[in-house]
Amino acid sequence: MDAGLDPFFRPRAIAIVGASEDFNRINGRPLKFLLDKGYAGRIYPVNPRYETLAGLACYPSVTAIPGPVDLAIVAVPAKAVTAAIQECVAKGVPSAVVFSSGFGEMGEEGRRLEAELAAAARRGGLRLCGPNTLGFMNTFDRVLATFSQAGEGDTPPGPVAFVTQSGAFGTAMVALGRQQGLAFGYFVNSGNEADLGFADLLGWVVEDPRIKVVAGYIEGLRDGRKLLGVADRALEIGKPLVITKVGRSAAGARAASSHTGSLAGRDRVYAGVFRQKGVLRALHEETLLDLAAVFSVCPLPAGPGLGIVTQSGGAGVLMADRAEELGLTVPVLSDATQATLKKIVPAFGAVRNPVDITAQFIADPGLLRASLEAVLQDPGVDVAIFYLGLMARFADQVVANLREAYAGASKPLVVAWVAAPETARAALREAGICMLPSATRAVDAVHGLVEFAERRRQWLVADHARDATTASPARDTLARVVAAARARGTGVLGAPDTFTVLAAYGVPVAPARLVTSAAEAAQTLRELGGPIALKVESPDILHKTEADAIRLGVNDAETARRAFEEVVANARRYRSNAVIRGVLAQRMVSGGTEVVVGLHRDPQFGPVVMVGLGGVLVEALEDVAFGAAPLTRSDAQAMLRSLRGARVLSGVRGRPPADVDALIAVLTAVSRLGVDAEGAIAELDINPLIVHPRGGGVVAVDGLIVLSEQGP
Amino acid sequence: MDAGLDPFFRPRAIAIVGASEDFNRINGRPLKFLLDKGYAGRIYPVNPRYETLAGLACYPSVTAIPGPVDLAIVAVPAKAVTAAIQECVAKGVPSAVVFSSGFGEMGEEGRRLEAELAAAARRGGLRLCGPNTLGFMNTFDRVLATFSQAGEGDTPPGPVAFVTQSGAFGTAMVALGRQQGLAFGYFVNSGNEADLGFADLLGWVVEDPRIKVVAGYIEGLRDGRKLLGVADRALEIGKPLVITKVGRSAAGARAASSHTGSLAGRDRVYAGVFRQKGVLRALHEETLLDLAAVFSVCPLPAGPGLGIVTQSGGAGVLMADRAEELGLTVPVLSDATQATLKKIVPAFGAVRNPVDITAQFIADPGLLRASLEAVLQDPGVDVAIFYLGLMARFADQVVANLREAYAGASKPLVVAWVAAPETARAALREAGICMLPSATRAVDAVHGLVEFAERRRQWLVADHARDATTASPARDTLARVVAAARARGTGVLGAPDTFTVLAAYGVPVAPARLVTSAAEAAQTLRELGGPIALKVESPDILHKTEADAIRLGVNDAETARRAFEEVVANARRYRSNAVIRGVLAQRMVSGGTEVVVGLHRDPQFGPVVMVGLGGVLVEALEDVAFGAAPLTRSDAQAMLRSLRGARVLSGVRGRPPADVDALIAVLTAVSRLGVDAEGAIAELDINPLIVHPRGGGVVAVDGLIVLSEQGP
Repeated sequence: MDAGLDPFFRPRAIAIVGASEDFNRINGRPLKFLLDKGYAGRIYPVNPRYETLAGLACYPSVTAIPGPVDLAIVAVPAKAVTAAIQECVAKGVPSAVVFSSGFGEMGEEGRRLEAELAAAARRGGLRLCGPNTLGFMNTFDRVLATFSQAGEGDTPPGPVAFVTQSGAFGTAMVALGRQQGLAFGYFVNSGNEADLGFADLLGWVVEDPRIKVVAGYIEGLRDGRKLLGVADRALEIGKPLVITKVGRSAAGARAASSHTGSLAGRDRVYAGVFRQKGVLRALHEETLLDLAAVFSVCPLPAGPGLGIVTQSGGAGVLMADRAEELGLTVPVLSDATQATLKKIVPAFGAVRNPVDITAQFIADPGLLRASLEAVLQDPGVDVAIFYLGLMARFADQVVANLREAYAGASKPLVVAWVAAPETARAALREAGICMLPSATRAVDAVHGLVEFAERRRQWLVADHARDATTASPARDTLARVVAAARARGTGVLGAPDTFTVLAAYGVPVAPARLVTSAAEAAQTLRELGGPIALKVESPDILHKTEADAIRLGVNDAETARRAFEEVVANARRYRSNAVIRGVLAQRMVSGGTEVVVGLHRDPQFGPVVMVGLGGVLVEALEDVAFGAAPLTRSDAQAMLRSLRGARVLSGVRGRPPADVDALIAVLTAVSRLGVDAEGAIAELDINPLIVHPRGGGVVAVDGLIVLSEQGP
Repeated sequence: MDAGLDPFFRPRAIAIVGASEDFNRINGRPLKFLLDKGYAGRIYPVNPRYETLAGLACYPSVTAIPGPVDLAIVAVPAKAVTAAIQECVAKGVPSAVVFSSGFGEMGEEGRRLEAELAAAARRGGLRLCGPNTLGFMNTFDRVLATFSQAGEGDTPPGPVAFVTQSGAFGTAMVALGRQQGLAFGYFVNSGNEADLGFADLLGWVVEDPRIKVVAGYIEGLRDGRKLLGVADRALEIGKPLVITKVGRSAAGARAASSHTGSLAGRDRVYAGVFRQKGVLRALHEETLLDLAAVFSVCPLPAGPGLGIVTQSGGAGVLMADRAEELGLTVPVLSDATQATLKKIVPAFGAVRNPVDITAQFIADPGLLRASLEAVLQDPGVDVAIFYLGLMARFADQVVANLREAYAGASKPLVVAWVAAPETARAALREAGICMLPSATRAVDAVHGLVEFAERRRQWLVADHARDATTASPARDTLARVVAAARARGTGVLGAPDTFTVLAAYGVPVAPARLVTSAAEAAQTLRELGGPIALKVESPDILHKTEADAIRLGVNDAETARRAFEEVVANARRYRSNAVIRGVLAQRMVSGGTEVVVGLHRDPQFGPVVMVGLGGVLVEALEDVAFGAAPLTRSDAQAMLRSLRGARVLSGVRGRPPADVDALIAVLTAVSRLGVDAEGAIAELDINPLIVHPRGGGVVAVDGLIVLSEQGP
């Protein structure tokens, strides 16, 4: 928790700069909200045009305020904002929220104004949210530093925090969430993020012990690395981040950039690092709210086993389908559980899982209780869903039965109640049961519970320190190779240098030697054993095949000599001014599965590792996965599992399973390399990496490093 | 429209067999419903225990009823049902709905009772719905032949028909749909389907001119072919079938079979034939209702171009993402449209598409109208979504603006209104505008509109007759080969026979000859030109590679002779009692893309064609697509497009595009073959079929036909 934001989120005194007596205006609404909601701190309206406002003394300037001020709400025209902030700094105000628009969202001149504003805040040590924001609410302390419609009506405090880059969308979501019984402890619109960014705000609210789940809406991040830090912390303390990140498509990215000017980022990288860090990504608005609801109420499940109890066989099948599609399991219940159920469930019901207790539970209230208890106690069940529809006339009885059945239970229970009576949700929530309005939405929410719990378990047992640290010889090698390349004036490191670095990090590379004469080529063939490949080595020739500067399967000395000459001649012909460092003579690798491993310096997330299955899967399906460095072993494992073609590695059609452990070791090693490079490496490619059958290890066959323009 | 079901769905007189005076009981509720709702026909309660019931004369038996009866509602214990139906037959009652449970869902004895019941109905020419059904409603004519909760409260007639195999689930869906403003003209639970099946019921309601969309819920079909016929008719008349089909997963299929005893069917075949026939598949309950809502109100769009207008940039991006993910386009608006919009949209908004008109439209009502009109008129826009949130205070104004903007428009318009005021939906619907409660749900619904419209366009222009008919020589060849195989006593046809059949249907096959001596092998090499492959031809050896009974790349006479001897010897060693018909000498094919084409006799859908891309895509991803025979060209094209690896055919990484036209011709030919075989073929495989670059055609390299146990 960044204690520096305490005055911002929990101010003891608030100044409203540019306050208005018109409570319908942007600069009037926060005063009304603060008064109506009973904010307990001091409120200082600031406006030279008034002596008093709504019965409060009004001050001509911030510096004229008699007592200390923790937060300034700034609602003056854009051109006057920087001056207002400078005045806040002079007064010693530590934080501000700036509603005013007319900044970065308005073109060149606006961007200049915004840079000025940010600089003024930074110089003065003032933390600033905005500009161009609806502001924020902390409903626990009745701090309504906002003009959003979300401040209207009841604003009950509660376990959900919501930080959004879009004001209008966020407001609608809060309204919809409240209709569904969600209580928002915090609602924050980050605006243009001139100073405080999305991750700063998220990082503070996640630490509040009254908050159980943090929802977010992202169009583009300024500092993705900081978000990953918050996500790590969220895993540690067991509070999920549930995020809708838009800008996935071309049209979406186009709209996002026209909308805020922030980088839309490459979506697949987001998908990868979110998965890695247990950030749950909601593609639909309702999913965002459903996940917030379920984490507000339910404990985390110990595993993926879903027990389904229904009054409708049909709904049971629908839920089982959806559960398996998402990777949950719907285990056949134990013999003991089935025996218990058989005694009470009507013969036309079902007892294996899904359990169909039929509408009989209305006539026989004990049936609901006993069957649900039995399912919750089944050893294979980690989380349960009970489905029903309508039942308005019997709602109180059903709620009472559910509460009895759940009393003392420690596994999460979600009730999917279609067309439910209004009163049921709150009554169930009090008992620790989450109610959702449809069968498939309940399954989707349970999947979120299971996924976060699973990722958290992996995170807690991972040895983060070990996975991030590298022995110094490897780092020295990396530094030396990079320095030598820079000294040569080249930004591209070919296979020999790349292999040197990879080998230092423990990545097996195909035996090879850079040769500079035909005789040396023949000699190398003898030493390495054949067959070998000969490939031109030049920073200026990236497509060796196109240049016809590669010869494969060379098996005798005479061919080796001739191949050397041809390769060099063809390279010269292809690009006459190419710097040719020699020819790489490399032992050929046969068999195994082709994999591509990469590392790039991501504008949002820093060093990011990529893995994909070679050949048609990468080419036709772009079947690759990303993860932010450093990777733990379980991070790397999860990346591989997320590949569509993951089955290729486990051995399809009788082929032996690949040496996944060795591949995981390469991914973690490359991730450490990415961290150690401290930005020096723009891109690293191993293509292909051959993965042999289990126990056979891996070997890098070709590799390339592109250095950053700048870097250590 | 099967006029035979008119008395069932629109009865002029109803008998209630087993009627009760207790209106809370299953046998009492329909009488109450019919009276309460004002059913205009005659009602005849039948129960020897009463003289009158609810003021109506009550009869001791059906035969005692004085006038004609169109429909009998049967609600007597299972063991008395068949007798009741026989009495109906004696009375000349043409149709019945049987509520009673205790039949097929209850095990062996129940199945026997059900078979008896079905036989009695069939013998008597009586059409029967059930047993074990909640019954049905025709709300246009106030026929509430049901005991479902769905009959309670208001039951307004309307454009949605819903046929469901699950009673409880269906009832909940109707309740939820009514909450969302849907009006159900028909609600039918098909029960155990002893006589009338899902497709029979669907086929009748789709023809009612007051019905605009037919929703369905399926666990398993008895006669999938009939459903395809209904789907064809639905495409013809432009009314979509929107169906939730469960049993997609192992757990789901397990539950489905424990639930109804019906076949769960292979889900991927369902997916394929549904796509082919324009049946929209809803995986979530809310999707089913949203699709019903949008088709109830909107015209069909002319193309996939989506115009998005919002008050929130964030929602615009979210929708653009979802739209592109689903294959809709979000076109950049024309220069003229953008120019129009620029004049009215605030500078911090956006005008390219998504169009962000900002919250300014509240202060400036003309902005909403003018911007929406401009977007609807843009030539690239086929359908539009307008997004907003809350606005309770301005709801009437917004609705009026929307109605004005849409007056005279012919393109569909969906309003995504989050946390909307209650009154808005009905007011918009009257104006032909569909309102949904979220951004992404609106996009999903629009996608359904676009998909059905597109499939319908393709269906209307296809030459169904031509695509289904084959010249008689091919059919004669097929019949001759099948007859010869049956005469030989074999059920498996190897490559030579399969090639004969395929060639007759115009599928190019690799030149080959069945040889029976080493000399003949050498001679064939000379005639075909090398290289050739030699493969053992035996109905008893399906895995030639495993038997080492295949030789590739044979290029000279001596090798051909030796290869022949080896292949035969190895085959004998592999399976000593194998019938060896000879060795197939076949010209080898090089290059091209490997494809797998199959045909099987599906228990639900009859002859079904399969296509997949060979190699890792089929093996690791099971990337195959299905379609029911006969296939039109556009059916085949849609199958190919639905493959995940479809890009492989269009040429990835600079490879030339494949000859997709020739591949489509193979798929349609195989589908005609499937129809012509009239069930004689259980399975046909072409694996591989080599597809050469565009213009180069295709060639079948190996093939197999497995005959049905029975068949013509």
